[in-house]
Amino acid sequence: MAQQAFLLQSSPISSQPHSRWGFLLILSLLFNALCLVIIGKHGQLLNRGSKTENLQSLGWSRKAAEEAEAAAQYSCSGHGYVFVDTFRRNQDGTPVCECNECYLGPDCSEIDPNCVANADSGDPGFLEPFWMANSEAGATVVPAWYRMSYRIKDGSAAMFSPELEEQIRAIHALVGNAVTEERYIVLGTGSMQLINAAINSLSPTQSSNPAQVVAAVPYYGAYKGQTELFDSSDNLWTGDARAFQERTKSLNSTTFIEFVTSPNNPDAQPNEAVLKGKNVKAVYDHAYYWPHFTAISHPVDEDIMLFTISKLTGHAGSRLGWAIIKDYDLYQKMYLYIQYNTLGVSHDTQLRATTLLKAIISGYKQSKGMKAFKTDSKQLLFHYAYPVMRRRWESLERIFSASDRFSLQNLQPLYCNFFGKVTDPSPAYAWVKCEREEEDCAAVLEKAGIIGRAAKEFGADKRYVRLSLLRRDDAFAVFERRLQALVSHNKTAQESM
Amino acid sequence: MAQQAFLLQSSPISSQPHSRWGFLLILSLLFNALCLVIIGKHGQLLNRGSKTENLQSLGWSRKAAEEAEAAAQYSCSGHGYVFVDTFRRNQDGTPVCECNECYLGPDCSEIDPNCVANADSGDPGFLEPFWMANSEAGATVVPAWYRMSYRIKDGSAAMFSPELEEQIRAIHALVGNAVTEERYIVLGTGSMQLINAAINSLSPTQSSNPAQVVAAVPYYGAYKGQTELFDSSDNLWTGDARAFQERTKSLNSTTFIEFVTSPNNPDAQPNEAVLKGKNVKAVYDHAYYWPHFTAISHPVDEDIMLFTISKLTGHAGSRLGWAIIKDYDLYQKMYLYIQYNTLGVSHDTQLRATTLLKAIISGYKQSKGMKAFKTDSKQLLFHYAYPVMRRRWESLERIFSASDRFSLQNLQPLYCNFFGKVTDPSPAYAWVKCEREEEDCAAVLEKAGIIGRAAKEFGADKRYVRLSLLRRDDAFAVFERRLQALVSHNKTAQESM
Repeated sequence: MAQQAFLLQSSPISSQPHSRWGFLLILSLLFNALCLVIIGKHGQLLNRGSKTENLQSLGWSRKAAEEAEAAAQYSCSGHGYVFVDTFRRNQDGTPVCECNECYLGPDCSEIDPNCVANADSGDPGFLEPFWMANSEAGATVVPAWYRMSYRIKDGSAAMFSPELEEQIRAIHALVGNAVTEERYIVLGTGSMQLINAAINSLSPTQSSNPAQVVAAVPYYGAYKGQTELFDSSDNLWTGDARAFQERTKSLNSTTFIEFVTSPNNPDAQPNEAVLKGKNVKAVYDHAYYWPHFTAISHPVDEDIMLFTISKLTGHAGSRLGWAIIKDYDLYQKMYLYIQYNTLGVSHDTQLRATTLLKAIISGYKQSKGMKAFKTDSKQLLFHYAYPVMRRRWESLERIFSASDRFSLQNLQPLYCNFFGKVTDPSPAYAWVKCEREEEDCAAVLEKAGIIGRAAKEFGADKRYVRLSLLRRDDAFAVFERRLQALVSHNKTAQESM
Repeated sequence: MAQQAFLLQSSPISSQPHSRWGFLLILSLLFNALCLVIIGKHGQLLNRGSKTENLQSLGWSRKAAEEAEAAAQYSCSGHGYVFVDTFRRNQDGTPVCECNECYLGPDCSEIDPNCVANADSGDPGFLEPFWMANSEAGATVVPAWYRMSYRIKDGSAAMFSPELEEQIRAIHALVGNAVTEERYIVLGTGSMQLINAAINSLSPTQSSNPAQVVAAVPYYGAYKGQTELFDSSDNLWTGDARAFQERTKSLNSTTFIEFVTSPNNPDAQPNEAVLKGKNVKAVYDHAYYWPHFTAISHPVDEDIMLFTISKLTGHAGSRLGWAIIKDYDLYQKMYLYIQYNTLGVSHDTQLRATTLLKAIISGYKQSKGMKAFKTDSKQLLFHYAYPVMRRRWESLERIFSASDRFSLQNLQPLYCNFFGKVTDPSPAYAWVKCEREEEDCAAVLEKAGIIGRAAKEFGADKRYVRLSLLRRDDAFAVFERRLQALVSHNKTAQESM
């Protein structure tokens, strides 16, 4: 308005003598030019500015979002990270990078030459790059007042987000790995919590004959560890399921709870229950029944099946798992157990899991050629993850092929319904055997700077050891190098004999 | 650039005959005016646009932040809410408000006249308005790749965020309610999980003499419920601690685990352990030892103390609690229990709890006059929360003062170190007694449309009932109305006799 007033005042110039008109016109035209340059230069910015205004005018979430992004922008050389809750600080108050194992220095750029290769943990760090590449779809914003109540909703399963339940059913439908129609789902604080929820709920109460909890060797050690630590009057761990194969009929007043991990942890075999009979309750742990680890041959449909987000999306730190259950009474019992144990599962984690599952599912929805490997795998979780696991297994096969001291478990290519083709093995763990008799395989590897998980944790002979293929690229690279050195050294030693 | 070229071509106009100059000058001046109007009008927007660009250029977090804020903007009349994971949708795809209890309609604007007043749950909804008012400080953004590992850090307590541990110690230091210096802290999935972690860790193993778990009547029912459901060989629930007062010495080979809730749930009394002796292990549950519920008389310093975020910040749905422990071996055992039970506590929830505690602490840091009630209570959690709880208790006192059929527990004003003055009672629960003999107090209230928690849940006489004062304003208003009606009706009935 001020500018308009100024222009109106200066328009009487046109009544001045002709000689001045040329000069004024030139001045005016120059001013026109300046105007157009300004508008031209800022045109793009103007557009962006107004778009920004329309799109978001972010309020309460802006500060937290800015802080999260500022933390993520610290450079840790791709071998570490900073989050808003990174604890250690430099003297100037800036955060100190949290470096991946084997990396050192203020920006994690130095490799520790003496670093031991940790192949013990089942940490699914191999999926971290997928989520870094899908950072927008996988981000979660939790409002301060988000679901503060114990309950998420009214009704009987009040602790389980209906939207999360929908996404869990949807991911199984997408992959075709489990039947969920007309099944109950119990949410747990990781499938770890559901192990004991199942044991507790399947055991007879106040019986002089407690349930026997068993699993075929080699088995995931937590079944034993948990049952023994919790030491219920209603059940006890009695070890290898195969030891009871002949006796379940004669012991028909005893309840057997058999854990069947399929594909198996540690050896990736597609297990079936070993025990049969009315008194046998099989709990199928399908943590690894996803296309990155194994061919999906059919939708599984057992009475009790456990799954976990840890081995699906890779978010082991977000404690969330689920049990798919046929029987209503068992569902009710397990739900009650979770109530008494932890009053449900953190709502924050339920929200994050919902976001992550939605991100995976929408990645596939957006892609039409989901059966083909050539689609853009950056937003297709299984298409991204399978080749990573496959390459790792190929690397181990290559290293061990040069050795007759060590051998790997035998795995076959199988037809995968999800990928619509035969897929080669891509297991989560190598189950390594030391071929020399009486040798403690974990100790042999430890001497070579490789930490595996010893066979005794799986109820197995000490000639075996489990090596994790799930960890971050950084950890896998160190592990691969040490393994190569061990095998080469053995071969050289043998050849020189 | 295109505009500039156009101008250079048209400048030869100045060589045209004089008669046209006036017309051209006017045209040019009009164009100038237009330019200035455009620039003037968009000047502010230009500035804002560039400021936005500088301030944040939000990347991966923007979409999630926008979605979270868009959900929060749906109008649910202040009696409900929408979040990004709100499940129910209208036909047009917009979310259906999740209404608070007793509210109905698409925007939760209708009150249900037949609604039963639910005063059963310990849901701390009374703190929801505080977090709505502090939505910026309390918001949490979780990157897609945030702490995916089972471990948060290297070392022995690898599942516990050091930043969260720091904030837990800081909030106790701020309030002065517990000694944490030179104490160990075990994190749990709510203090619920820590109850059994303590029982399991304090019980002798493989003993013919299991530990006896007790608590003085009236006690919080979960101690009993959990111990009975988990049915360990190493311990059993044996009821009222007072029944063993004379016998702990003669039963000196038996371990007693006594739960002491202080202030007590249900009756808000400042309890001390009833049993004494070397064989007695007291577990102090200090869930309610915060300034909103009771006067802080001193920093408590027991061997084992439980706290929970649920009754501190009000985030009951974010399952997180902690135990403060003196003995290193017990700390190790309880840590191991949490490992076997749930493999730690969700990292997402640890991050959110860190944010919430920081928000409370920084609210007080920013305020100098924290001892005075007159400071801006909108950002001072305890200064906001105490008056809310106090008003609710005053309301109940007023209602029951007109009745000789019902009585409330007796509570006294006490000096509160935190507020630096004597504070009047503001308990979490009313522990109501029906004065008529043989009357089932919970049933009496239920007939009047009020659901309380029956005395048998607390091991107490049926003449008592617990009424929650913790719920949302909406729920409390309904409860207050029904209670007033019940007491008035009784009084009228009595007077007409």
